[in-house]
Amino acid sequence: MTIRKTFLSLFLLLFIAAPFSLQAEDGYRAWLRYDKIDNAEVLKSYQAQFNHVLIKGDSPTLKAAQEELEIGLKGLMGTEFDFTAGSVQGGTLLIGTIKELSDFSELNLKTLLSDSGPEGYIIQRRELDGKEITLIAANTDIGVLYGVYHLLRMMQTHQYLDGVSVSSSPKIENRILNHWDNLNRLVERGYAGLSLWDWGRLPEYKDPRYTDYARLNASMGINGTVLNNVNADPRILNEDFLEKVEVLADIFRPYGIKVYLSVNFQSPIEVGGLETADPLAPEVQEWWNEKAADIYERIPDFGGFLVKADSEGQPGPFQYNRTHAEGANMLADAVAPQDGLLIWRAFVYSPEQTDRFREAYDEFVPQDGKFRDNVLLQVKNGPIDFQPREPFSPLFGALPNTNTVLELQITQEYFGFANHLAYQGPLFTEALNHDTYAEGEGSTVGKIVASEVFDYEHTGIAGVVNLGTDRNWTGHPFIQSSWYAFGRLAWDYTLSSEDIAKEWLRMTFTNNPKFVEPITEVMQESREAGVNYRSPLGLTHLYAQGHHYGPAPWTSDLPRPDWTAVYYHKAAEDGIGFDRTETGSNAIGQYEAPLEEKFSDPETTPEEFLLWFHHLPWDYEMDSGRTLWGELVHKYYQGVETVRWMQEEWESIEGLIDEHRFEEVKALLEIQEKDAVIWRNSCVLYFQTHSNKPIPDQYEKPEHDLEYYKELEKTRYIPAPRYY
Amino acid sequence: MTIRKTFLSLFLLLFIAAPFSLQAEDGYRAWLRYDKIDNAEVLKSYQAQFNHVLIKGDSPTLKAAQEELEIGLKGLMGTEFDFTAGSVQGGTLLIGTIKELSDFSELNLKTLLSDSGPEGYIIQRRELDGKEITLIAANTDIGVLYGVYHLLRMMQTHQYLDGVSVSSSPKIENRILNHWDNLNRLVERGYAGLSLWDWGRLPEYKDPRYTDYARLNASMGINGTVLNNVNADPRILNEDFLEKVEVLADIFRPYGIKVYLSVNFQSPIEVGGLETADPLAPEVQEWWNEKAADIYERIPDFGGFLVKADSEGQPGPFQYNRTHAEGANMLADAVAPQDGLLIWRAFVYSPEQTDRFREAYDEFVPQDGKFRDNVLLQVKNGPIDFQPREPFSPLFGALPNTNTVLELQITQEYFGFANHLAYQGPLFTEALNHDTYAEGEGSTVGKIVASEVFDYEHTGIAGVVNLGTDRNWTGHPFIQSSWYAFGRLAWDYTLSSEDIAKEWLRMTFTNNPKFVEPITEVMQESREAGVNYRSPLGLTHLYAQGHHYGPAPWTSDLPRPDWTAVYYHKAAEDGIGFDRTETGSNAIGQYEAPLEEKFSDPETTPEEFLLWFHHLPWDYEMDSGRTLWGELVHKYYQGVETVRWMQEEWESIEGLIDEHRFEEVKALLEIQEKDAVIWRNSCVLYFQTHSNKPIPDQYEKPEHDLEYYKELEKTRYIPAPRYY
Repeated sequence: MTIRKTFLSLFLLLFIAAPFSLQAEDGYRAWLRYDKIDNAEVLKSYQAQFNHVLIKGDSPTLKAAQEELEIGLKGLMGTEFDFTAGSVQGGTLLIGTIKELSDFSELNLKTLLSDSGPEGYIIQRRELDGKEITLIAANTDIGVLYGVYHLLRMMQTHQYLDGVSVSSSPKIENRILNHWDNLNRLVERGYAGLSLWDWGRLPEYKDPRYTDYARLNASMGINGTVLNNVNADPRILNEDFLEKVEVLADIFRPYGIKVYLSVNFQSPIEVGGLETADPLAPEVQEWWNEKAADIYERIPDFGGFLVKADSEGQPGPFQYNRTHAEGANMLADAVAPQDGLLIWRAFVYSPEQTDRFREAYDEFVPQDGKFRDNVLLQVKNGPIDFQPREPFSPLFGALPNTNTVLELQITQEYFGFANHLAYQGPLFTEALNHDTYAEGEGSTVGKIVASEVFDYEHTGIAGVVNLGTDRNWTGHPFIQSSWYAFGRLAWDYTLSSEDIAKEWLRMTFTNNPKFVEPITEVMQESREAGVNYRSPLGLTHLYAQGHHYGPAPWTSDLPRPDWTAVYYHKAAEDGIGFDRTETGSNAIGQYEAPLEEKFSDPETTPEEFLLWFHHLPWDYEMDSGRTLWGELVHKYYQGVETVRWMQEEWESIEGLIDEHRFEEVKALLEIQEKDAVIWRNSCVLYFQTHSNKPIPDQYEKPEHDLEYYKELEKTRYIPAPRYY
Repeated sequence: MTIRKTFLSLFLLLFIAAPFSLQAEDGYRAWLRYDKIDNAEVLKSYQAQFNHVLIKGDSPTLKAAQEELEIGLKGLMGTEFDFTAGSVQGGTLLIGTIKELSDFSELNLKTLLSDSGPEGYIIQRRELDGKEITLIAANTDIGVLYGVYHLLRMMQTHQYLDGVSVSSSPKIENRILNHWDNLNRLVERGYAGLSLWDWGRLPEYKDPRYTDYARLNASMGINGTVLNNVNADPRILNEDFLEKVEVLADIFRPYGIKVYLSVNFQSPIEVGGLETADPLAPEVQEWWNEKAADIYERIPDFGGFLVKADSEGQPGPFQYNRTHAEGANMLADAVAPQDGLLIWRAFVYSPEQTDRFREAYDEFVPQDGKFRDNVLLQVKNGPIDFQPREPFSPLFGALPNTNTVLELQITQEYFGFANHLAYQGPLFTEALNHDTYAEGEGSTVGKIVASEVFDYEHTGIAGVVNLGTDRNWTGHPFIQSSWYAFGRLAWDYTLSSEDIAKEWLRMTFTNNPKFVEPITEVMQESREAGVNYRSPLGLTHLYAQGHHYGPAPWTSDLPRPDWTAVYYHKAAEDGIGFDRTETGSNAIGQYEAPLEEKFSDPETTPEEFLLWFHHLPWDYEMDSGRTLWGELVHKYYQGVETVRWMQEEWESIEGLIDEHRFEEVKALLEIQEKDAVIWRNSCVLYFQTHSNKPIPDQYEKPEHDLEYYKELEKTRYIPAPRYY
């Protein structure tokens, strides 16, 4: 964009903003704002390109597409559109499925859509009967809806449509949100109000918010949602709850979103009144078969079940001396007749292990190939638990015969809840781009999940969201961006986090480059800042137990060693870090040879993972020339400095966006800066008791001593309803 | 209003509604909507009467008044107003305090405002210097703000201002909301989301909602708010919390709202580190003195403390063998130097009592006169606990020497949470209009509370609210009306609930009489319906233990007898009801002689209180000619029928208001109807096991048997985060 254009759009922005001043920008509309395009040139080009819409077909999904276009085009272009045109003219926006558009054989849709699959679409500027039109076409209704959202996204981000020719289809089949919502509406690891699902008013009251939830998700191509917590309340399978679930499924269906439920393995006992939940007991299989059939009668497109079994106190097949595969397969058989999926979580660890890192791999690799075709094993990106940075779980690449789903966390359980700005895009792309070497170089986690390395029957990706009743859905306005990044990457895992950030900023705030450029940078740096002020250089899990908000690297006395911080950092006079080489737990042996080799030597281990794999002396020399202690201190201080820079950048854009969100983010950055200092000081002062080395003079002295921060851990307010 | 006018305004309504269709009517604006006046005649008259504003003075409160006028007049009249006039002209809206308007001696404000006190105001159409003006004047800034809200209310309800001459001042000094908000943001007995106070983001983030909260309250004249639960977390007095409280106090101050805190009697131990909280220990007095001084340094107009002591597990002076007066006076002395108040709750009852009804009276009457002048004793309207109908607490009228505050419950703890429509206006006015006969006939509760019977040093009224983060503040849109009724009655306890309902409907929905008339009737009947389907004829507290949502008249086995239902209804083969005459607990002896006499005989006891005072045989003859059993059944069925009539009335107004709120209330009425049937059937079937009499044939048969409803109590979903 030239400087002239920039000034022009700035001018128009200010001019147009005034009449909207009474309409609060509270974040509810998220990235589907559809405010009038403030770039006159772009607007003019759109006006020249289409001025009426011809949608063929009237299914609920196509109606949803039309409604979205009605709102979107009216908002963006500031004029009512004609949706009643009976025939193609110059300037038609022609929309439909291959079947509905079959009259227009000239379009040659069969060829154009041959690679689009059941969810893809094309968007083209082209001629039809000698008239210039814009075409959105797909093999299915939902493909059409996705194409409509794509067009609106292009317009929201001011992309010129001259000669546009888009063809897009998802690389992963099941793109699923996981809600950890309890039935009492408290959300585990959620920090944005109560659960969206108002069970006390369902099935009677259909909150319009449910539709907006579906719209936002469909706009990215999310096509599944697990409504309830994996720590599952058995009562979700009671008839009164299924009646409520049915209503949600009905609302989501036109938007292509299937409903899934988390189920408790003991449900046959808890709600079925059986004596056992043994997966090999015939009456248990029968109970689940009937329950599944009952659900499918209500919800013909029900997605399936998600199960957390034999993990953190949840029941599972172990108590009946059955394997994970036996447990999962029994449930898979119950949903198989209706093409349902059974998603089994791989997040298991027991107190007996000496290295929790190893556990899921040791448990599941021997069972590879023993699962039914409709079982998907859902694996967190890292081997521990959604830490600010983890190496990839060695299960990726080690399960050639088991459909493997990648589980990412959108909610900021380990990133300052809804108080910190920590765009997860860079974490997600890092996780997707890790090379497993499973089938040689280039066997990235993304490719494995997309079935491009092994041949999976089903593919999937899951994102644990924190959505709640907070007006802006996510608490911190910027957590919307991680929700958005998850959705966009679920569709196409090869996208860059930076491009997604820019796109999101343009849609959510403004296309003004004076805002978009610096704030993209803020977003891109925010995750690394969070790593640095919490656990740099491959340290991990230094959190206060339970809530995971603030630091407690001193934690040592808990019921299980792997809930403590000292278990993870192993700081002592001789050094710091967890030895996972052959001299230690040998977890690196779970990786393919090139990686095992790389990680076995501190010199070839990337420094960001150094202390994940090695226990090293405090004066170990780092790439920077600093000692390990010096580098550690440097990183902690750098983390805080980045947050302060983020504050400056944010304050520099005052006036370019609405006051409401500007002030909110500004205040939250103040909180983040305070919290970052607490993290830094707690960790540096604590590790100093082991390193016995000074904090170099160039750094600001911690305001308080270590005892202060230990006391603070006990007394400070934790911003989550379950705590305090 | 003539029929012609009605049609006209209907037309205008439809005409004007269209451009707003994208702006959801989600209830956030409550009764301060300020949509453009759709009655052309009224609008024209306002346009003729004033066209610019002259506000003298610029204090924060006057600035708030100006801002409200800017939003209000622009919205209502659809044009920008001139606020920059330097002098009085024809059509001036002249606004100011007696001091700021001292130049205009012709106004003779000293005389006009002689009875207005520190919060009252006058509004007049009059001449000044030969020019027709509209005047809002008061002795103080806050009086001016209240006057501005009064004017806007008149405009919102389409009142002609020709010759208007209003003089208004509050009859009660302290008009206080009580929030039962826990520090973790769960609200005890709240059903509208999380606490409004986002402690995790305070003091940094000043949510604009805090200001809207203050505006809504100030518009009714509420001048105090207790931020936290009476079951008080001691940590509210920690420095980090006081820093947050200070921010809220700063936001509320311009709106005349003082902040109060609920405090835990053990605070000196819990947060002060003392060994004791004995009110007579000098170090305890000193600790509270210092704590109070610290608070007043932050918040110079801090309202004071509210204490629930020696009640339902809360600590108090009893454990130190001190009296309520000794406990209260010590705290009162701590806040006295800064004119703070100490509000002490009279809600005490112990398991030893044979009749909980008696307890507060027996405890506090002997202490009358022993409290400091700045102690206020806060007494619930009835002797038990916010039941759908209670006789008045005999403490009203029995404490000539103790400032007595009336505590009302706005949140629907016993009225179906946020799922039922149950306008509390009729309950509030019934409570205020009970005649205590304390100083002869006419000594109503309202007059006592307003110090018109005895001579109190301070007067007050408290409303327990359920406000939360739900977009519409209260969950059920109509609970706003009870909040509003409380506020309006706190200002003037002589108002009628019907007038308040009408006023609220006009401001909140529409002035269209086709809506206002039938829905006023719905509101007025709604509380009686709630009484009838739950506990008619003076029955009480038949609730499931703990959550108080559904019925459990069969409850008999609980740690304390007065937590059971059978304790209250005493149904047996020989009859039903609690004998509180001389042959029973003689609680009626706590009332003045005329009432004692009236309540001692079933024939002279109003039937709505019959079973509160008498245990009567099932075939006792009622006024209707029915037996007691027959009347009981009749009332239960009548309750359900009224709800069905409410549904019909509501459905009849479709199209007269926005779709969002229409559909929401419609769905909630469906839930209410189902719940009402559950209540009716549970109670009728249960009492039938004692009466051994049939349900007369003319009534619909209960769908299920008693066992079904007993089981339902255990399994049904309870719409409140603490339960289920």
